[in-house]
Amino acid sequence: MAILLFTDFGSNDLYVGQVEAVLDRHAAGVRVIHLLHEAPPFNVRAAAHLLAALAQGLPRGHVFLGVVDPGVGSERGAVVLRADGRWYVGPDNGLFSVIAARASSTSVWRVTAHPAGTSPSFHGRDVFAPIAAAVAIDDFPNEDVAPAADLAVRFGGDDLAEVVYIDRFGNAFTGIRARDMPPARWLVAKGREIPHSRVFAEVAPGATFWYENSSGLVEIAVNQGHAARELGLAVGTPVSWR
Amino acid sequence: MAILLFTDFGSNDLYVGQVEAVLDRHAAGVRVIHLLHEAPPFNVRAAAHLLAALAQGLPRGHVFLGVVDPGVGSERGAVVLRADGRWYVGPDNGLFSVIAARASSTSVWRVTAHPAGTSPSFHGRDVFAPIAAAVAIDDFPNEDVAPAADLAVRFGGDDLAEVVYIDRFGNAFTGIRARDMPPARWLVAKGREIPHSRVFAEVAPGATFWYENSSGLVEIAVNQGHAARELGLAVGTPVSWR
Amino acid sequence: MAILLFTDFGSNDLYVGQVEAVLDRHAAGVRVIHLLHEAPPFNVRAAAHLLAALAQGLPRGHVFLGVVDPGVGSERGAVVLRADGRWYVGPDNGLFSVIAARASSTSVWRVTAHPAGTSPSFHGRDVFAPIAAAVAIDDFPNEDVAPAADLAVRFGGDDLAEVVYIDRFGNAFTGIRARDMPPARWLVAKGREIPHSRVFAEVAPGATFWYENSSGLVEIAVNQGHAARELGLAVGTPVSWR
Repeated sequence: MAILLFTDFGSNDLYVGQVEAVLDRHAAGVRVIHLLHEAPPFNVRAAAHLLAALAQGLPRGHVFLGVVDPGVGSERGAVVLRADGRWYVGPDNGLFSVIAARASSTSVWRVTAHPAGTSPSFHGRDVFAPIAAAVAIDDFPNEDVAPAADLAVRFGGDDLAEVVYIDRFGNAFTGIRARDMPPARWLVAKGREIPHSRVFAEVAPGATFWYENSSGLVEIAVNQGHAARELGLAVGTPVSWR
Repeated sequence: MAILLFTDFGSNDLYVGQVEAVLDRHAAGVRVIHLLHEAPPFNVRAAAHLLAALAQGLPRGHVFLGVVDPGVGSERGAVVLRADGRWYVGPDNGLFSVIAARASSTSVWRVTAHPAGTSPSFHGRDVFAPIAAAVAIDDFPNEDVAPAADLAVRFGGDDLAEVVYIDRFGNAFTGIRARDMPPARWLVAKGREIPHSRVFAEVAPGATFWYENSSGLVEIAVNQGHAARELGLAVGTPVSWR
Repeated sequence: MAILLFTDFGSNDLYVGQVEAVLDRHAAGVRVIHLLHEAPPFNVRAAAHLLAALAQGLPRGHVFLGVVDPGVGSERGAVVLRADGRWYVGPDNGLFSVIAARASSTSVWRVTAHPAGTSPSFHGRDVFAPIAAAVAIDDFPNEDVAPAADLAVRFGGDDLAEVVYIDRFGNAFTGIRARDMPPARWLVAKGREIPHSRVFAEVAPGATFWYENSSGLVEIAVNQGHAARELGLAVGTPVSWR
């Protein structure tokens, strides 16, 4: 079992290391994997769809510590979700709700106690990390949580017809799962009609296409180009089908 | 016990991984945590205050490998500090001197021998890492060090009324510990008078405020904004109180 | 033994973490070190020289997982190289060929089977990582590989008189090994004649010089300056000697 971090912290900032130090203190020897940092910080819905696609491709048993949390310091709760054999610890703001809606089995706990000295601005370190560590070392449920009927915020499990992530090459992930999408369909984004290709190598340099990416999502790409810049895509840009 | 890296290496550069490979060779199985890279490279005093605040919040027993080292290749020495149950290995240029000044108990060793083949430009890998590993596996003091009376460069333990760090959201850490600072006080930076708030969620969007951050320092922030850009703050910018 | 990643993935992208999750599944407890990400993505020859220099300085026994792979999705093969006691797993596109040409002993296997569900765009996760893990846990050769006579693409082991890497300070690595280069020689780049210095501290601020860097390569630097910007250097810029 590993603990996978999925956060909106800066990769270069000093927050991630502090989270890992707390995980080390409570779960020595458990591997910590930096799955994603710098997730778009103010778009919880996009992050929820991205995390659902990523988690689906990773082994059961792992613990995901999710921090996309514009409401830290406000009254939003903290939550633990168990869904299809994977664990999720983080804010109860919808971040895990796409996963929950698509799961065949779920259990939910809400966090009822914060450790002494908890910083109001860093629940990732002070609240979520100790609980993720407790899950990882099988010391869960513990006295800091109580069973809950459901998540407080739910987005539903339907695909999201928007850009949810852009990588450093400018490739734009959408929140649409590709498995049911016939290759004959054209994707439309920013007024552009975009044909399908199976792989980069099958289109000419400079050509725009959509394909099923390595996370199972519909992705917009330009062979040897930067799709986001060339088409003007950003996280949240809507897409449709023709 | 873990080894925590605090350096001015680029996060994306090929130096950090080489340090970790040396740590692995000498201290297999010991966790390596990337606490901070890309620390402001030429401001040792600011880095010393930032590290002191961070270390204070982390467990005893850990080893900090610190590299903020504009003088690599010159005659500055290398040092090991034990302070309040934590260990620090790095250049003897003041980086650990704020920690030493505030500690209730300290021991100091200077490094007397460099491994064969030491690169004059990469003491982090060739000098500091083997010693940090030796501390981590309890093979310390060894024959490469000698007890010393004190650090060679000392900044003193008083607060530093300057910006010492800026995170990716533009929040500006100062070197002032918040614990003794009454919330009624106004902070002044770049001619702006800045009121206190406990958390982001208690001020209007766009409002500038100071608060006690998760490292116990006075921090300047703009709710949903970028304080450093909006106020023109950089590492080294002086602040005062009104 | 550790697994060292050397890739052109974005450091902040979500690919690296997925690779590490696969490594964890197949080789639990083996340390994963992020040696370099964001290697120049379309210059395999430069990457091959950089990797050769880095690996030379690291212990034997390690496994290098290399992904600089503009041809993913095309017909290029996957390969495992054992050279002088170190292991290399990645695309058979020349990335390991400088290492092979310089080694005193080599063995080569080609990958003959891809796991079910392999994504055509992410061989780093689906093809290379499981094999690197198998090597690390000594479950190699296995049924997914066959012995091969040689690498498919070979660049040869001679030095490369070009810039192969630029770090965050603007220092420019060349593909020239410094050990045989007399300090009396002047390096020429972009029409500038550049003298030797042993270390940064021996030249005036603002002075341009070349020196033997910590990886044994000839590097162009400006003391307290940014050599790449000041001289107009990029990966691929040719250099010569006067």
